[in-house]
Amino acid sequence: MSNPVLVNTLRAEVVENRHRGAVAVCDPSGNLLHAWGNVEALVYPRSAIKTLQALPLVETGAADHFELSATELALACSSHNAEPAHTETVHHWLQRIELDEDALECGAHPPLHDQTTAALIVKRQAPGRIHNNCSGKHTGMLTTARFLGEETRGYIEREHPVQQRWFDALGDMAGVDMRRLPWSYDGCGIPVIAMPLLSIATAFARVAVPDDLPAERGMAVDRITTAIAENPFMVAGTGRLCTEIMALTGRRVMVKTGADGVYTALLRDKGLGIALKIDDGTREAAEVALLAVLKHLGALHADELESLVARARVPIVNTRGVITGYREPAELWS
Amino acid sequence: MSNPVLVNTLRAEVVENRHRGAVAVCDPSGNLLHAWGNVEALVYPRSAIKTLQALPLVETGAADHFELSATELALACSSHNAEPAHTETVHHWLQRIELDEDALECGAHPPLHDQTTAALIVKRQAPGRIHNNCSGKHTGMLTTARFLGEETRGYIEREHPVQQRWFDALGDMAGVDMRRLPWSYDGCGIPVIAMPLLSIATAFARVAVPDDLPAERGMAVDRITTAIAENPFMVAGTGRLCTEIMALTGRRVMVKTGADGVYTALLRDKGLGIALKIDDGTREAAEVALLAVLKHLGALHADELESLVARARVPIVNTRGVITGYREPAELWS
Repeated sequence: MSNPVLVNTLRAEVVENRHRGAVAVCDPSGNLLHAWGNVEALVYPRSAIKTLQALPLVETGAADHFELSATELALACSSHNAEPAHTETVHHWLQRIELDEDALECGAHPPLHDQTTAALIVKRQAPGRIHNNCSGKHTGMLTTARFLGEETRGYIEREHPVQQRWFDALGDMAGVDMRRLPWSYDGCGIPVIAMPLLSIATAFARVAVPDDLPAERGMAVDRITTAIAENPFMVAGTGRLCTEIMALTGRRVMVKTGADGVYTALLRDKGLGIALKIDDGTREAAEVALLAVLKHLGALHADELESLVARARVPIVNTRGVITGYREPAELWS
Repeated sequence: MSNPVLVNTLRAEVVENRHRGAVAVCDPSGNLLHAWGNVEALVYPRSAIKTLQALPLVETGAADHFELSATELALACSSHNAEPAHTETVHHWLQRIELDEDALECGAHPPLHDQTTAALIVKRQAPGRIHNNCSGKHTGMLTTARFLGEETRGYIEREHPVQQRWFDALGDMAGVDMRRLPWSYDGCGIPVIAMPLLSIATAFARVAVPDDLPAERGMAVDRITTAIAENPFMVAGTGRLCTEIMALTGRRVMVKTGADGVYTALLRDKGLGIALKIDDGTREAAEVALLAVLKHLGALHADELESLVARARVPIVNTRGVITGYREPAELWS
């Protein structure tokens, strides 16, 4: 059984590209309220679970000890653009924990933000580890290790307590045994664990209703999600959909992208969690599918939908500036 | 009915991304010798038909009149990288027909070749129309218009004789009425016509057997395909699969990429034409699928397969340089 087509790209009246995928919408008890496609299939959530990977940073007491700002907490949950505001914050945070960029064990890649990449090229400066979109998450992991007096070298390895702690936190929230699921390495070098899509959605539904969680977990979730809601720029950056949606919705809707066509979201007022994966890994299709789900669930107000109209049905513009078609949700959602 | 999965991307043992698509393999009579997926569906061939769009350049006598080199003819059929060898050739060719870059009606986009783009950024120079990967095709179109004394302004419009001529040539080769098929604008601004995949494959099978064509058409096809075989760099460039395959196979195999996951190919020794479209438009998947078809058809010799091994099953490398998985053909092909 193939997953349904969630998004089409049309050129004039003909569908040029079609993107299949699966979406799970769950409540905090794990009840599946909406499902498109096979939501039991294993999916690598990639960066879409960074909020949950940051729980140990707060729950161990490391965030309090180092007096992390809300900006830094948001950055710990980010896939950032490596714009100056992002890398400077990481830089100073690393200094505060008496480490530097060399302690980061993510690899280097050019900034996700084209103008920042161009600025590096002009300066003939190679991108560094600090420019990795995950450098905030890695700094958060290093912060916990420093606070607990753990060896920081090798903190990205699966057996290191830094990794084991988020396996526990996420496994608990998702209701799965993280150590029995298939795993591999993520783009930045830490482990990535393949999970059923509906378990990922359930974890985010629980994040949506922190009052129902054990007190300490609920407080950590509330602190992290508040930091994200207050700092949507730090979680992604200029031109990025995550930043744009959360700048509009504040605490009501939290969304997070993951590489290869993944999105997670939570609707605080409805107490729902969402997890979405495009079969072919296309980010642009995942963005359109996410907005279609949010619209379908009534998660966005009319003025928010209006602001996001060119994100929900994306004009395809050729090199002459002519609109040749649209990337748009499949009929499924209408 | 959904098309079959042609290519999977695995991270460790789990399939992370799957790419569906369709492939048609035809002989010059239009007999379908192999088919995967719906080969009657309409597909925009995009740049994968440039060889056939160049036929009028030779058949009108324009190529002879302006004494076009094999290099220039190959460039007329190219989706080039805008490396210096490409743009300098276009520049001098435009001078010979007493035009300049301003006559090109394609839009500008950054070169497909990262180092060439970086060199422009360092020089703080915006990419021009000449850097458009289609600037060779456009120069070929302008050359025909100049030779025939046609107005060059507006040569990209559907009604202009420059466009009408390739509709006739391709329609004839593919056995379709181009004027009754849906059309839109391509990335570079000329019309793009949605055609059944098997008709595209048939057209390329006819290119594979020029001796069976009417004499004038056969000579034009032979001249263009010889120019391409002798100048594989001009058709694409550094690091590009089209260039790499044709540098290995010479006249025996001709391949051409098109935007949004299209490939065409012809096997001269077998007299076959191939057309391939990945449903989701992913170029990287189209490359793997193309090599799987070529292998399946026995089109590549053992040493060629050996040279292309990392193209046929592509290692996915993370930012730390670790291979996390492979992009590889689905079982279908084995």
